[in-house]
Amino acid sequence: MTEKQAEHLINTAALEDLQNGLFMYQHDSLFKFGVDAVLLSRFANVKKDERVLDAGCGTGILPLLLAAKTNGKHFTGLEIQEEAVCLARESVKYNSLEERIDIVCGDIKNASEIFGRDSFDVVVSNPPYMKKDDGKKSDNAAAALARHELECTFDDLCRETSRVLRSRGRFYIVHRPYRLAELIITLSAYRLGLCRMRLVYPFADREPQLVLLEAKKETSGDVKVEKPLVIYEKPGVYTKEVLEMYE
Amino acid sequence: MTEKQAEHLINTAALEDLQNGLFMYQHDSLFKFGVDAVLLSRFANVKKDERVLDAGCGTGILPLLLAAKTNGKHFTGLEIQEEAVCLARESVKYNSLEERIDIVCGDIKNASEIFGRDSFDVVVSNPPYMKKDDGKKSDNAAAALARHELECTFDDLCRETSRVLRSRGRFYIVHRPYRLAELIITLSAYRLGLCRMRLVYPFADREPQLVLLEAKKETSGDVKVEKPLVIYEKPGVYTKEVLEMYE
Repeated sequence: MTEKQAEHLINTAALEDLQNGLFMYQHDSLFKFGVDAVLLSRFANVKKDERVLDAGCGTGILPLLLAAKTNGKHFTGLEIQEEAVCLARESVKYNSLEERIDIVCGDIKNASEIFGRDSFDVVVSNPPYMKKDDGKKSDNAAAALARHELECTFDDLCRETSRVLRSRGRFYIVHRPYRLAELIITLSAYRLGLCRMRLVYPFADREPQLVLLEAKKETSGDVKVEKPLVIYEKPGVYTKEVLEMYE
Repeated sequence: MTEKQAEHLINTAALEDLQNGLFMYQHDSLFKFGVDAVLLSRFANVKKDERVLDAGCGTGILPLLLAAKTNGKHFTGLEIQEEAVCLARESVKYNSLEERIDIVCGDIKNASEIFGRDSFDVVVSNPPYMKKDDGKKSDNAAAALARHELECTFDDLCRETSRVLRSRGRFYIVHRPYRLAELIITLSAYRLGLCRMRLVYPFADREPQLVLLEAKKETSGDVKVEKPLVIYEKPGVYTKEVLEMYE
């Protein structure tokens, strides 16, 4: 990506108000963050002085939300798409968060080479939900990469997460419920023990569309399954819990 | 157990109306079935002419409910406690179901020796929820055995289920959500792939207390996570769905 291309990208991007004092660049040509990222940022716990990695940060929504919400020490966003990296860095600058957030251009598959072992207390990720051959792929290359496991499988993500996390470090993900068995088994294969789970239902009487998971490195034991997270009270009307998330 | 002891047990037992045309003996000294068994009987699918095993049938609630609800060919209840076997057999006789239901006194750990491999289309089980050393054990030996994994672990149950089930046969269980990760991993280790799950919540805004699982032998793939099953509308008032189960 040339300097000129970067400039053009930023000039044609829109600044979005995150309603928490921060602003973020979004671009029509790139994958835009959704409610998934907001839910994950609420589900994840980051404690004082912790170091956090967002594996596949896109345009940087999770580092921004987590930096605003927590007193974690440092947030690193790792992203393979140059254009997304460019916008994420611009958003960090816009919010004067350069000291707390770094955006690194690189491949999740090499995360442990890039950052070294045991280098984070927390890893968060909103990975592509669909397997390589599942469903229709987007014609937009950036969106296809964000939705389908083209570059990086869930197995790759767990392997690298297990390496870069310190012992007992936490891993937070949002994913699709239909992959639940595979997710739990793969986490476990990399010594990431599921310890907390919450299902996200569009309506109280519908099947869940998302699942939020917390796993802890080098543990295995009880799972705290939380109360349902319901998005809509009725069509177009958010539940109280979701409304409070956006306040 | 002598004939005299059996006679005494039956004479001091109470006949309970299952509200589906059947009656069942229950005894204060034995573990009584709960809502768990009723939910499992509703969750399990038994097709025409299928052979079904209930691993750890207690006083026989699941074979009775499934025989009433489905047109399965034959139901076998396996139970290690002589007293429970005695009452279960008496209930089968009382309902004139001797041709469709057999109660066998034996250990789940030997199920494949007792019945042979590939001998069932469906296995159901409402196993002890707690590990050997979890929580307080009941002073009542029968209740302790039904609640704690004293005689049979979840691993034992899955190993034997995998042996007695035909390929693609289904396994239905009810268990505690806190053990979810271990359940899915153990099922998978015995080639029982989770394919369907439903969480049971006492109230819509509380943590789930039970989880219903369906696994299929020699498959692994997508999981259908169903809508929440909520028991109470408000304290003392069942939801419509639960009321319909008892109709």
